[in-house]
Amino acid sequence: VAHETAKREDLLQRFGASVREARARAGITQEKLAELAGMHRTYVSSLERGQRNVGVVNIYVLAEALGCRASDLLT
Amino acid sequence: VAHETAKREDLLQRFGASVREARARAGITQEKLAELAGMHRTYVSSLERGQRNVGVVNIYVLAEALGCRASDLLT
Repeated sequence: VAHETAKREDLLQRFGASVREARARAGITQEKLAELAGMHRTYVSSLERGQRNVGVVNIYVLAEALGCRASDLLT
Repeated sequence: VAHETAKREDLLQRFGASVREARARAGITQEKLAELAGMHRTYVSSLERGQRNVGVVNIYVLAEALGCRASDLLT
């Protein structure tokens, strides 16, 4: 359904923006976040652009690497 | 790595327990949550047992069906 697709994209972009903001607060680059989280740099780049439906495990991994709580990334 | 597998399982079980607790607070069955969230009953059952690495989109869908915030499910 078009409406549901738009909502899905909106949710993913909100999540990506939260990661980007938390990364800015932490003062680190995408490359550094990727290294700390054990992810590929292009994966971090695409999730910040809302192009990845990141799983709960990786939400926790990202939060740990960013020095924030997982719940902070879902606001 | 065994240590990382254990941590992953722990994270997923914590998430599943949060959903179960939020569902108890909402006073609804797994069947009802599945219906509200547009998910299969067996998927809800398995995610509450920590057997699914639920994506960020479905975390928001679950929270909406449970009448809570997505961040409440990642504590």
